Amino acid sequence: MIRVSFEEMKTEITRVLIKNGFTEGKAKKSAALFATASLDGVYSHGLNRVPRLVEYINQGWVDVHGEPTLIDSNGLIERYDGNFGPGDLNATYCMERAMELAKDNVLGMVTINQTSHWMRGGNYGWQAADAGYIGICWTNTESSMPAWGAMDAKLGNNPLVLAVPNKDNSIVLDMAMSQFSYGKLQTTRLNEENLPIDGGFNEQGELTRNPEEIEQSRRILPMGYWKGSGMALLLDLIATLLSQGNSTAALDQIKPEKHVSGYGVSQVFIAMNPNALSGEAFTKEVVENTIAHFKQAQPSEDSSNISYPGENTRKRREENLEKGIPVDTAIWEQVLQL
Amino acid sequence: MIRVSFEEMKTEITRVLIKNGFTEGKAKKSAALFATASLDGVYSHGLNRVPRLVEYINQGWVDVHGEPTLIDSNGLIERYDGNFGPGDLNATYCMERAMELAKDNVLGMVTINQTSHWMRGGNYGWQAADAGYIGICWTNTESSMPAWGAMDAKLGNNPLVLAVPNKDNSIVLDMAMSQFSYGKLQTTRLNEENLPIDGGFNEQGELTRNPEEIEQSRRILPMGYWKGSGMALLLDLIATLLSQGNSTAALDQIKPEKHVSGYGVSQVFIAMNPNALSGEAFTKEVVENTIAHFKQAQPSEDSSNISYPGENTRKRREENLEKGIPVDTAIWEQVLQL
Repeated sequence: MIRVSFEEMKTEITRVLIKNGFTEGKAKKSAALFATASLDGVYSHGLNRVPRLVEYINQGWVDVHGEPTLIDSNGLIERYDGNFGPGDLNATYCMERAMELAKDNVLGMVTINQTSHWMRGGNYGWQAADAGYIGICWTNTESSMPAWGAMDAKLGNNPLVLAVPNKDNSIVLDMAMSQFSYGKLQTTRLNEENLPIDGGFNEQGELTRNPEEIEQSRRILPMGYWKGSGMALLLDLIATLLSQGNSTAALDQIKPEKHVSGYGVSQVFIAMNPNALSGEAFTKEVVENTIAHFKQAQPSEDSSNISYPGENTRKRREENLEKGIPVDTAIWEQVLQL
Repeated sequence: MIRVSFEEMKTEITRVLIKNGFTEGKAKKSAALFATASLDGVYSHGLNRVPRLVEYINQGWVDVHGEPTLIDSNGLIERYDGNFGPGDLNATYCMERAMELAKDNVLGMVTINQTSHWMRGGNYGWQAADAGYIGICWTNTESSMPAWGAMDAKLGNNPLVLAVPNKDNSIVLDMAMSQFSYGKLQTTRLNEENLPIDGGFNEQGELTRNPEEIEQSRRILPMGYWKGSGMALLLDLIATLLSQGNSTAALDQIKPEKHVSGYGVSQVFIAMNPNALSGEAFTKEVVENTIAHFKQAQPSEDSSNISYPGENTRKRREENLEKGIPVDTAIWEQVLQL
């Protein structure tokens, strides 16, 4: 493990993206999103994902020139075709448009179909909340999780992002519908540890904390068991209907290769402007009182502090800004060669 | 346990509500909502809740004459004061308004503050989906669940409802943010059983399946551990900001008595009209294909069928319509005396 500065990481990813056909402007924007994910500790969807993006570009699965084109609009809701452009840039554009629509209307909704993996979903939550908007967005994905009561994966992991502005630390929840990601299983296995709680089923159909057993069975557990399972199904349906895009069922059909993820997915972006409704003072007061109340609880036996979504992200961001972002040496070498 | 017909249950609850000051029209509407909850198997928020409503009315915590009054509107979003009216009637009105707004605009949002417990949230999901709309709604509540990492409850259980139309069986997810309700803990304890999975912590701070230990510690587990905990916080914030209503923190302050639930809460109702966007044929195709794909999975070792949210509800509804609704004899006697 080495540490790389945020600036160096952005510069390096920008170089790679330009080399792979991005314009300079788009390369810088996308590199900032990748580097921010790593800066915030979401390594799996930051730098570590760059080699895979390059592979997808080379295979023609992501079109570096693809941009969202407006299909229809009623002045309040806009629906776009993502044209298989880079998913992070498409998503940033959609949240930007949703905020623009919400600016005066309080609420704006943008949907997009035929887009690509949005990488770290939390970025679009931070984007909205840091600009003073409530942000809600989600994406569907190809099948990757068995439904509750099922052995094989017919549900997407369909991450959901909920974000609320808070003066110096936006409150951002970025969660997949599985209790753990495959990335977390891998890290835990490499550390020769067990998960802190059950994360899936073994080949015998028993709940287990052993990451390797879950990687083998591919039976990852929905968060909240039947609850995350049901929610994944509903999020897929709503995204598909509102974007007139591909459902998880359709994505499983159109995938160019079995391992490809996020090809042609459907997404929803909702922005709400609480300040247009009630003014900044009210927003500030509600958020501050709620956080103060939340923090009044007594920490449990094995926790030292009770944190809201985004709070630890911010701490990690500051630490990584100061010390540099931890990077797997082999991956950094790989990116330097791209 | 006895069985009571749906019609008889409605008639009896209507009588009780009229006796307690409801107009005949409102009594019939509310009785239908209570009886439907019981019909669908949500006994805790159906007939079983009627005695508590009567207590709340007698105490002045629910105003039988309270109706939603419009605070402001921009033609797309309407914000109401619930005036402490019956929460089920207020919620039905809000979802109706949201659908009306969505009819031509595709999307409509209604928020309400100072309302009362909405009883069974799923009712408003079925209301939307059975009318051909996507429905999304949630409510905040007073504190009832410890955050992840906390010992004492500073989070509401803030149930969320997601609903999608489906020709003969709407897809409706109605979920609280805890893995199990206190009602479920009680039933499990009375049956001298353990929960199928961990449902909370015991007094020693260990995860447990023993319902009695959780009832004693009051440390019920958020669904998905940190995920449900974060989501409960965000749903509270968003509902409060959009309705300019009471947050969970504020609800804890204004509660007239410690045991009162749902007094002065804040709610959000979103309706979307997929048919206005893409036509009925597209909606039908997406939903059918998704359900067919979902059902293709192989059931796991201990499950005989993989069901989508609302599917078993519908089965129970049909069974209870035919055989009568199972009712605790003591509760039925109590309602007859009201």
